[in-house]
Amino acid sequence: MSEGVSIVGGGHAVFGKRKESGLRDLAHEAVRDLFNTTNVSKSDIDATVIGVAGDGFNGQGSPAAVINTELGLHGLPTIRVESACATGTAGIISAYNMIKSGLRDAVLVVGAEKMTSISSGEATELMARAGDLRWEFPFGVSFPGYYALIASAHMAEYGTTREILSSIGVKNHYYASKNKLAHIRKEVSLEEAMGAIDIASPLNLYDCSLISDGAAAVLLTKDSIAKKFTDTPISIKGIGQGTDTMMMAQRESLTELKGAQRAAKEAYAMAGVTAADINLATVHDCFTIAELIAMEDLGFYKKGEAGQAVLDKQTYHDGKIPINVDGGLKAKGHPLGATGVSQAVEIRKQLLGEVESERQVDGAVRGLSHNVGQSGQFVNVLIYERSDL
Amino acid sequence: MSEGVSIVGGGHAVFGKRKESGLRDLAHEAVRDLFNTTNVSKSDIDATVIGVAGDGFNGQGSPAAVINTELGLHGLPTIRVESACATGTAGIISAYNMIKSGLRDAVLVVGAEKMTSISSGEATELMARAGDLRWEFPFGVSFPGYYALIASAHMAEYGTTREILSSIGVKNHYYASKNKLAHIRKEVSLEEAMGAIDIASPLNLYDCSLISDGAAAVLLTKDSIAKKFTDTPISIKGIGQGTDTMMMAQRESLTELKGAQRAAKEAYAMAGVTAADINLATVHDCFTIAELIAMEDLGFYKKGEAGQAVLDKQTYHDGKIPINVDGGLKAKGHPLGATGVSQAVEIRKQLLGEVESERQVDGAVRGLSHNVGQSGQFVNVLIYERSDL
Repeated sequence: MSEGVSIVGGGHAVFGKRKESGLRDLAHEAVRDLFNTTNVSKSDIDATVIGVAGDGFNGQGSPAAVINTELGLHGLPTIRVESACATGTAGIISAYNMIKSGLRDAVLVVGAEKMTSISSGEATELMARAGDLRWEFPFGVSFPGYYALIASAHMAEYGTTREILSSIGVKNHYYASKNKLAHIRKEVSLEEAMGAIDIASPLNLYDCSLISDGAAAVLLTKDSIAKKFTDTPISIKGIGQGTDTMMMAQRESLTELKGAQRAAKEAYAMAGVTAADINLATVHDCFTIAELIAMEDLGFYKKGEAGQAVLDKQTYHDGKIPINVDGGLKAKGHPLGATGVSQAVEIRKQLLGEVESERQVDGAVRGLSHNVGQSGQFVNVLIYERSDL
Repeated sequence: MSEGVSIVGGGHAVFGKRKESGLRDLAHEAVRDLFNTTNVSKSDIDATVIGVAGDGFNGQGSPAAVINTELGLHGLPTIRVESACATGTAGIISAYNMIKSGLRDAVLVVGAEKMTSISSGEATELMARAGDLRWEFPFGVSFPGYYALIASAHMAEYGTTREILSSIGVKNHYYASKNKLAHIRKEVSLEEAMGAIDIASPLNLYDCSLISDGAAAVLLTKDSIAKKFTDTPISIKGIGQGTDTMMMAQRESLTELKGAQRAAKEAYAMAGVTAADINLATVHDCFTIAELIAMEDLGFYKKGEAGQAVLDKQTYHDGKIPINVDGGLKAKGHPLGATGVSQAVEIRKQLLGEVESERQVDGAVRGLSHNVGQSGQFVNVLIYERSDL
């Protein structure tokens, strides 16, 4: 067995509507943060992996070389990876593989997306084009619609209520208000959340994640050199990946993502742990219903039991299994390619005790990240562990 | 040292203007060819890597899931990789890393592009958008222009002539005429090639590669299971990657690609061979000048000496170092994401003695593939070896 791979540094741009910043500026901001907080110099880096989900948001094709040059890292191997909204974790997994295979020792992963140069209507259409262009997109369905189907099915099958979904939005807005990197740092009341305007019924405004600009970066190295960069490397213990049919209509069930279940099973097996061993999770709450089914698909709760746990606030930072206590995609924001990398940066900081005190999970040593592309066509699950304790 | 990785099967769609076939049909055709010629069933495959360079050619965002479903492989992990025109080899390298890292045992790589649904003018603009969108694209330069700069510089510095460039086009058209998978199976005379209309002076029509539809596929496995699928696995012996500045204006020299030199050096070192040990090569002749500088960057010839070798026909199938005896991008065609995978399929067949007799390189045991993205912003070099002899 060859040696493992660790995250030795993380960086994060402020998520939001970043009028003055283009794609390369956002990437630069995240990497600058990483360089400022990690004992790394450019010559330590062997290769980069760039995660950008869509060319169309800003018209720049093939973004990896642009970002590599902006970082002053031209010359080094680079690759762009893309798995729709699961692009960020696809980047981390690719970097893991590059190192573990023996080709590279230290790989910088940058996830970035500049989404607000176009209108939110145009952005919604662009994202919808990642749905099936032959059989679904032409009939008008976009992502709020796909997840509305899932929400309706979950409500019908398990009695999931408006209050449960809104409670997830309330929690995520609460934690975003405590997170200085978040896009919308505003609390919402349960009443406001329940009464908001419909987007795609039953999903309303406070069920839907944000269209954000942002970037995040992590540096991965093989374990034997990790201590050169930090005293507290975070080990990548588990990796799982799953997918599903392109068309929602071809699936047996709408109340679960089989790809997430498969990815979780793989990741737990590789890490040698179970759901009960996870101290906190960042899950892909592109819609509130997605957080709910993630709680079930990841095995934190049995099917149909996550809703009551939400009402009982078990997913708050001091609850049984803290989930998205960074504000989640819902309120921290969801710059597509950045999201999975942002999850890793958040978990790393949590495990190091470095986040804002109002949302710090005390004593956490193991975190899970769940990152979904489209409506489950890509799911990546990663398990991170503090290994110095 | 963990075990190696081999190509155990290859498949190829016919390149061309494939009016009746969309992206998923082309991918399906290539994979069907692989399944028909390799002892593999779906349950043998652990994951897929999908190489598609541009979303914009057919409007389908995030193409990996679409292709995965079309192949009946949904459920399995998939990822899309993109390195502009070097996307195909980026896919092969990613699959190599997945296997070598221990995460997967058998990975299917599919490279595909559907380029002719839009006009050639629109396709040229779309590709130009992979150039620098801030400092170069807005001033009107597209890829023929970038390579015209390289050609002009090479002519000025080394006395490279119109006849040398045209002789490369003549060779590649000759071999495409013998290749049943090629887009344009038509020979051209040196006179025709030299007198063709200008595209971006000094490059004319017969200096420029084609806008093609196409797909190609390879199956990679770890060596210990390779014999289950074929008696003649082709080992991946060397991998090298290099990049360069986004802007051409920032480069020291226009007569070489530093990324190619770096990639070649890495690949030779990993394989433990030199340029003299290579029996044939597929190089990225997006323009004839690109084939010429590849001959020099890869170390087959000293700087400035490749031109005479071209005139001496040393790169024909029975010459000193056969190059692009499949017709190359020039005449076999250049469906962006497919090209690097097509190179691998061609080298595999050459090493197995399975190509058309008029272009078979006798006794070849080791081949090199050189795949370039943009104007050298990405370069991947791979060395393949027949290991059963």
